[in-house]
Amino acid sequence: MTKLRIISPHFTDKSTEVAELKAYVDALGSDGLEISHTTIPTGPISIECELDMALAAPGTIEEAVCAAKEGIDAVVISCFGDPALAACREAAKILVLGPGQTSMHAAALLGHRFSVITVVESVRSVIENMAREYAVADKLASIRVINIPVVELASDMAAVNEALAKEAIAAVKEDRADVIVLGCTGFLGSAEVVVAKLKAQGIDVPVIDPIPVSIAMAQALCTLGLKHSSRLYACDPAKPTKGYDALAGKLDA
Amino acid sequence: MTKLRIISPHFTDKSTEVAELKAYVDALGSDGLEISHTTIPTGPISIECELDMALAAPGTIEEAVCAAKEGIDAVVISCFGDPALAACREAAKILVLGPGQTSMHAAALLGHRFSVITVVESVRSVIENMAREYAVADKLASIRVINIPVVELASDMAAVNEALAKEAIAAVKEDRADVIVLGCTGFLGSAEVVVAKLKAQGIDVPVIDPIPVSIAMAQALCTLGLKHSSRLYACDPAKPTKGYDALAGKLDA
Amino acid sequence: MTKLRIISPHFTDKSTEVAELKAYVDALGSDGLEISHTTIPTGPISIECELDMALAAPGTIEEAVCAAKEGIDAVVISCFGDPALAACREAAKILVLGPGQTSMHAAALLGHRFSVITVVESVRSVIENMAREYAVADKLASIRVINIPVVELASDMAAVNEALAKEAIAAVKEDRADVIVLGCTGFLGSAEVVVAKLKAQGIDVPVIDPIPVSIAMAQALCTLGLKHSSRLYACDPAKPTKGYDALAGKLDA
Amino acid sequence: MTKLRIISPHFTDKSTEVAELKAYVDALGSDGLEISHTTIPTGPISIECELDMALAAPGTIEEAVCAAKEGIDAVVISCFGDPALAACREAAKILVLGPGQTSMHAAALLGHRFSVITVVESVRSVIENMAREYAVADKLASIRVINIPVVELASDMAAVNEALAKEAIAAVKEDRADVIVLGCTGFLGSAEVVVAKLKAQGIDVPVIDPIPVSIAMAQALCTLGLKHSSRLYACDPAKPTKGYDALAGKLDA
Amino acid sequence: MTKLRIISPHFTDKSTEVAELKAYVDALGSDGLEISHTTIPTGPISIECELDMALAAPGTIEEAVCAAKEGIDAVVISCFGDPALAACREAAKILVLGPGQTSMHAAALLGHRFSVITVVESVRSVIENMAREYAVADKLASIRVINIPVVELASDMAAVNEALAKEAIAAVKEDRADVIVLGCTGFLGSAEVVVAKLKAQGIDVPVIDPIPVSIAMAQALCTLGLKHSSRLYACDPAKPTKGYDALAGKLDA
Amino acid sequence: MTKLRIISPHFTDKSTEVAELKAYVDALGSDGLEISHTTIPTGPISIECELDMALAAPGTIEEAVCAAKEGIDAVVISCFGDPALAACREAAKILVLGPGQTSMHAAALLGHRFSVITVVESVRSVIENMAREYAVADKLASIRVINIPVVELASDMAAVNEALAKEAIAAVKEDRADVIVLGCTGFLGSAEVVVAKLKAQGIDVPVIDPIPVSIAMAQALCTLGLKHSSRLYACDPAKPTKGYDALAGKLDA
Repeated sequence: MTKLRIISPHFTDKSTEVAELKAYVDALGSDGLEISHTTIPTGPISIECELDMALAAPGTIEEAVCAAKEGIDAVVISCFGDPALAACREAAKILVLGPGQTSMHAAALLGHRFSVITVVESVRSVIENMAREYAVADKLASIRVINIPVVELASDMAAVNEALAKEAIAAVKEDRADVIVLGCTGFLGSAEVVVAKLKAQGIDVPVIDPIPVSIAMAQALCTLGLKHSSRLYACDPAKPTKGYDALAGKLDA
Repeated sequence: MTKLRIISPHFTDKSTEVAELKAYVDALGSDGLEISHTTIPTGPISIECELDMALAAPGTIEEAVCAAKEGIDAVVISCFGDPALAACREAAKILVLGPGQTSMHAAALLGHRFSVITVVESVRSVIENMAREYAVADKLASIRVINIPVVELASDMAAVNEALAKEAIAAVKEDRADVIVLGCTGFLGSAEVVVAKLKAQGIDVPVIDPIPVSIAMAQALCTLGLKHSSRLYACDPAKPTKGYDALAGKLDA
Repeated sequence: MTKLRIISPHFTDKSTEVAELKAYVDALGSDGLEISHTTIPTGPISIECELDMALAAPGTIEEAVCAAKEGIDAVVISCFGDPALAACREAAKILVLGPGQTSMHAAALLGHRFSVITVVESVRSVIENMAREYAVADKLASIRVINIPVVELASDMAAVNEALAKEAIAAVKEDRADVIVLGCTGFLGSAEVVVAKLKAQGIDVPVIDPIPVSIAMAQALCTLGLKHSSRLYACDPAKPTKGYDALAGKLDA
Repeated sequence: MTKLRIISPHFTDKSTEVAELKAYVDALGSDGLEISHTTIPTGPISIECELDMALAAPGTIEEAVCAAKEGIDAVVISCFGDPALAACREAAKILVLGPGQTSMHAAALLGHRFSVITVVESVRSVIENMAREYAVADKLASIRVINIPVVELASDMAAVNEALAKEAIAAVKEDRADVIVLGCTGFLGSAEVVVAKLKAQGIDVPVIDPIPVSIAMAQALCTLGLKHSSRLYACDPAKPTKGYDALAGKLDA
Repeated sequence: MTKLRIISPHFTDKSTEVAELKAYVDALGSDGLEISHTTIPTGPISIECELDMALAAPGTIEEAVCAAKEGIDAVVISCFGDPALAACREAAKILVLGPGQTSMHAAALLGHRFSVITVVESVRSVIENMAREYAVADKLASIRVINIPVVELASDMAAVNEALAKEAIAAVKEDRADVIVLGCTGFLGSAEVVVAKLKAQGIDVPVIDPIPVSIAMAQALCTLGLKHSSRLYACDPAKPTKGYDALAGKLDA
Repeated sequence: MTKLRIISPHFTDKSTEVAELKAYVDALGSDGLEISHTTIPTGPISIECELDMALAAPGTIEEAVCAAKEGIDAVVISCFGDPALAACREAAKILVLGPGQTSMHAAALLGHRFSVITVVESVRSVIENMAREYAVADKLASIRVINIPVVELASDMAAVNEALAKEAIAAVKEDRADVIVLGCTGFLGSAEVVVAKLKAQGIDVPVIDPIPVSIAMAQALCTLGLKHSSRLYACDPAKPTKGYDALAGKLDA
């Protein structure tokens, strides 16, 4: 049995994104997987720029450390920007995956070039830097945006899906993408719809939904007994820190 | 239930590598996975250079096409060099994974830099080209060899494991690898031993066994309903071909 | 006197491509060059995807080994995709050139950026991988296709030349190519026509015909006494192999 | 008159690093430059890993926003890891420089290859990722460490300087560095000593002290009227955020 | 007091470019900076290709050596192509900056991607090679040209500014540039106008004027006591040379 | 009949390098090749740094233009640093090859990785920049030096050959080079000796002598009717230039 915790790195209790994520997680049943979900105590309502990423980080780290203390096996940070990914790996001694990194490597496994379709212009440079750091930049055909902010996604998923399909078709035809990566965890469930719309146009390419692929990869890695190196991802549990009482005494290796 | 076929791209029936692989596959039990195994009718006894890769390709393609016809969900080619990987994806309309590509992307998910420990000098340039084509070259810390040919591996696994551990330690200490990738499917089962030997030296880094990670990833992708794009990986089933009767009439999309 | 063998890595006896190649080779006269030509016993009728490349490989290797046994000095594989290039170098102890690799390096010698104009979409990713492996990717301005399959080329060379010129002009004007590489050996003889059509538009850029440039480079390298390193390109002549009787006993170093 | 604020992104009031920085800043006199200094209210005592970077970010952003509100012209974040650099640029509408980025570009201006000498192993991957994101990786000859943690630097600067010089000499002789970058702002003042020690060995290469070069570049850019694009570095001042009251109402563009 | 010499690497006395440069330099006042200006005795009237660069080099080197002999602290070569930059550093033992290199690194400090707007098509490959050698190629969004030769710039600066603004807007909108670099020192003074025109379109990105940024950076580096490594940039003062009497006896280390 | 001119881009009449080059050229006989040789009127006695390259350029350009006027078909610049290569191509309307560029592309044709063995430390960065500009940097295993200046080469060729062989062996064994490139045209004739010394150590790798390979490639390209694009390599023949009377009126297209 793999115990997985999904951390939405933003504060919210009414967000349909979170509701949808919970519904999805509940529906996954129980074939060897027990998934729980949390949001974070401090941070922005959504993540669309480097400032949002920075403000979401401490809460995300706290929740990752808590998950490790509770005996959770793996954490998935539910934001394509992978906020605090390396920091969480250092602070919590369990497997931590980011959907951006996981989706891009899965895309690289499935085709020659992939395009990321995301929400707004301001995350473009974030994703370009991620692709470069993760060393998959040579596989990145393009980044395209639908120009709908994260908090507006849930209010009209039909429009979101329409826009995603439109950009996905353009990515295939104009940018020669072989694989489409949905570049926001708020697109949960859209992959199926986009695939159908692409097939209606005679286009058959895989469409990667970042949360499901991250959950599946996390389970696979846990089953294999693989997690990140404690040699690379380490921190000094005794280092004095101010203002983060929630972490105090919880970083012991 | 995911039906997986492992194809060893070399001829042999007495090879302990194959026996070990079968034992491993049998031991995997049945949690949603049904694994079968085959070797190929024509090809070399082992794969250690580009010539071996080329001669192994037609038989591997034939077996992949047969697997698809039989209703298998996914194929794993059991050689780190990923012989005929793209060709199999074109010929068979099911998911096909190569352990080289899968392991290197898994390693990139788990750390900053990885080293591949493989059998002999002659596969070094093969692996370097793979890393460049798969776009993970920036993550490759080093390639190291134990100088034991594939066909001699099984006769003294203790020596093999000793050599693997020695090179893994050097990769961590001298090449600053955070992740170790075992660069031959003949090393099946050695990861556990190498991890133990590394820990005895106070070194805690993940060690990736290419076949298990490929099986796990194949199952994960099948569960997600993801396979390669038929847009990228395609062939003309009506194209006249001489000398490959086994493929005749089996490439229809 | 340099003895050169051109191997067309496809089966065919009526292909006008081969007829044209023979005529071209015959016309080369005898200034220090003796050229012979062969097709392969097994393989596809044309090469337009990775599957075709894989199925063409064994026959190509057999013919390369035969050429070496006959005392031939150098082999040119007559397909822009360079099928079995490294394997032929390992198996035969003579110089082996691929027109894709040779043309791309010649193009890099002649200008700042080059475009490859080829037959169909499905070879695009093949050529991109070649450019990356050959380390000339930074010089590659674009790949353009004329959307005419190889087997249809000979039936209307006027249309082929028209299409090549159109794409070449676009490559120069839109992609800023300084050099044009014809990306299929079936375009033999078209370079001259394309140059004329470009000049009619006031565009003066070199157009590289892959077979002639490969023949000239092979002769130059033979004259210099240069061939590939037996250190890099090596194989074990005693390795047991099944299903390739034609190679048996012919791989001795 | 350029008003510059140096933000030490760690909490501390007794750190000699901060004392030294203040002394340095006071000594700069007043030729067109007015420098002030602050630490941050929340964060770690020093920055040596990704976790430290993440925990230092919110306080650093708060201080950068305060500086902008006070009419400061430019901010320099006093840590070679450039924590929260992009986030500060988004949140504060003034020039923000990081010493890591600034020093590496200055080094690229002064030579063919540069080496970074830093404190401990754990910052190595941070700096490698920075070099890749900043696009100067091709100029990076090596990263070397002196194995002295940040908080111990001030207690024995003679030992620190000795170690820096030793690694700098090795970087020049073994890694062929033409420029040395001191990779920690805690090395303030060491450049002069290292230069002298290098000259005593007959080695004449520039040694870059990250804080002074960042101050000088900030003043130069302010004089030129140059700051970061508000097109790239932007945030939504109205976005709801929890737990960061200090930022409330201060992000208006 | 920093003594700076600007060398215009072309012959001319009536060029408005030089007149404008002198006016600009005079206007800089005297806050710690004493700027002088010279043209070169031999060379082309303007620099727009590699031939111009080569013919401008000897005169530029002579002037740089003279400047060093006169006690000048730093030289700026007033051409975006940085002719003879490395050679001047070897021959003169003082700081020498090229506006191309300096501007591109300044642009990299200020944003994620920059575009260079230059004069004519023929300098495009020069700038691409510079970006690759300076290691900032990953940051280069595009190179755009206004198709006005250098010698015609001064006769209609309004048209030049109009064309620069048009291309800058296209660079931002189509090529996603965050920073604009004016790619010719003949554009001196245009940055301000281009910024205004961009703002009128609602676009706020920094526009870098290469000469002012080079002067400011030279002053900053001189203040810091930083100059190029004499280890990297060295020459043998005793090497016999024919035809360059102006350099004789002036290269002593 | 191909008429080839070799230009030694340094002044000298007693240099044994030039004498040897003449002897070599004379010995080439006359199978379709007529080779002449010249030195340049102004320039350094040898080329070992960027300053030497810059001072050699004008004379080299003059000689290339003269060669074109005389009806020569192709020019080879006899220096591995390829001084004035692009400028000569712009000024003279005939094929111009540099031995550095030609040798590196030939090496890339013959193996996976090559090492350059050259004269002294100061040319290292020159060659690294060339490899990056020519886009073969991914193939460059290492650059090694024998620490003998160009003018001292001829006085003890036995010592030179000994040193070359020593470094070549180290390049193969330590840097894993598959191909050796002699990185100075003053090594003419040494390739044969180095090959013999390598074989005596059981090492069989090709050794490229830059002048012979450039002559052979020039002849091959001339035979094919290929030369550089006049679109890329162009200059304005009417541009006023001071101090280069030898070029006056000779640049007409």
